[in-house]
Amino acid sequence: MHTSLDWIPCFVRQTLDACRRSSDDPAIHEQVLREVLQWISEMDLSLSPPALAQRIHRRLREITGDENPYEKDKAAHNQLALGFLPPLEKKVQASGDPLIEATQLAIAGNIIDLGAKSGLSESDVLAALEHAANVDLTGDLDAYRAAVSSAKRILYLADNAGEIIFDRLLIEQLGEGRVTVAVRGQPIINDATRIDAQTAGLDRIATVIDNGSDAPGTLLAECSESFQRCFDEADLIISKGQGNYESLSGCSHSNIFFLFKVKCPVVAESAQIPLGSHALLQNQQVL
Amino acid sequence: MHTSLDWIPCFVRQTLDACRRSSDDPAIHEQVLREVLQWISEMDLSLSPPALAQRIHRRLREITGDENPYEKDKAAHNQLALGFLPPLEKKVQASGDPLIEATQLAIAGNIIDLGAKSGLSESDVLAALEHAANVDLTGDLDAYRAAVSSAKRILYLADNAGEIIFDRLLIEQLGEGRVTVAVRGQPIINDATRIDAQTAGLDRIATVIDNGSDAPGTLLAECSESFQRCFDEADLIISKGQGNYESLSGCSHSNIFFLFKVKCPVVAESAQIPLGSHALLQNQQVL
Repeated sequence: MHTSLDWIPCFVRQTLDACRRSSDDPAIHEQVLREVLQWISEMDLSLSPPALAQRIHRRLREITGDENPYEKDKAAHNQLALGFLPPLEKKVQASGDPLIEATQLAIAGNIIDLGAKSGLSESDVLAALEHAANVDLTGDLDAYRAAVSSAKRILYLADNAGEIIFDRLLIEQLGEGRVTVAVRGQPIINDATRIDAQTAGLDRIATVIDNGSDAPGTLLAECSESFQRCFDEADLIISKGQGNYESLSGCSHSNIFFLFKVKCPVVAESAQIPLGSHALLQNQQVL
Repeated sequence: MHTSLDWIPCFVRQTLDACRRSSDDPAIHEQVLREVLQWISEMDLSLSPPALAQRIHRRLREITGDENPYEKDKAAHNQLALGFLPPLEKKVQASGDPLIEATQLAIAGNIIDLGAKSGLSESDVLAALEHAANVDLTGDLDAYRAAVSSAKRILYLADNAGEIIFDRLLIEQLGEGRVTVAVRGQPIINDATRIDAQTAGLDRIATVIDNGSDAPGTLLAECSESFQRCFDEADLIISKGQGNYESLSGCSHSNIFFLFKVKCPVVAESAQIPLGSHALLQNQQVL
């Protein structure tokens, strides 16, 4: 997916968010923002939004020296989510359709996205979870059930910290012995890395790998060889979040389901799904 | 008021909004946005937000050749507002406190602001008007009533097209013979100019002037001499909208009431009033 101009105001806001997390000095915020504006004015918009965000955040890290500006947010979101988890586990267990119940909750957890929005309150997260089962789920549920039922090797691409705690509900439903969970290779915005997968306890119910990359999505050509092999060999890929959708939509893998909450108008338009709803989209390969 | 960095994403969005209204050609949108980003990266942030917006929109007009990108929106908003007006006039007449009823409706009309938001639906406007009387009105209402009661010469600074129709409800309450309504001197975003004041019928109940300027606010030093004289001679100024607040807050006039709907987090923080509420703030002169 190329980058529409509508992303630019969002990149500018992300820059400001990140540099304010790295420094308390307004003079540094101004210097960083001016430099990044200049830099954005020359960006190659044929790249995908996660590829451009990757480059912007690399430059931000160079300027500020802060390798993980969102570290505190991520830890706080994990703790918040862990507190919400026990009743949700019971809800899934008691459900007549636990796979879809867990899928809806995992997608609702995708609200925890500091790329799409500057901040997030506890009540935003709680409301998303409470109403998860009633949100429109756009996609072919029968195809999804069949794919989950027949898959031998499932690769689950995680998105954000906090959200990854709710992914556990779905990964438990997918069953042990066939799921590999992939996280980012380095901190980028509030995306999940290995430490978040461990906090979620995913290493006890699945194989956890990282993709070797610092993009807030999955830029296959930049991922590690071992990740690429795992990607190619998986007969089902469950891909969480807008960033993975923006970077993998149209790729050559024949069996990907993109699960995300539609959080911005640009993605709503590109995916043709209303803002706020839950997407469960199959990959449309561009051959 | 100087310009906080939080305004920058908003300026970038405004640029995109305006150039899309001026041209259907994506290549032109990209060229304009890149140029304006470069230009914003070097802006003097000691200027107020309306002063910077003025310069950005001047540059946009130079590039696109379109002197009034929001012309259609403004006409549509005026027509929409005129349709809503008759029942609101009856509501004010029937009210036990017509001055405050009309003040709340005039502030609710300030939702029609394409500087603060890209688009606006009929239902947004209707909801704002229906709930106007119940929205928190932050300010010293007794001081406001006393100022209105004793003023001999009132200068009413209008803000946007559409909104100006609802201003009529308040201007009628202020009474004939002492009100001058000032609009912008040239089209800028969806701000009201003479034609909008005429559409609202304000020329029949008040004196209408323009301020001679193309800023989306009131930059006194750039306004016409006749406007400046009127400003100095008024013993009460009623100033509508965030743009007038951002450019006049702290100025030397001793008796200004700023009426606006708090529509963005930056203004909410600077005015110390919750987002969504109605402001009726007295000028705090910076001497």
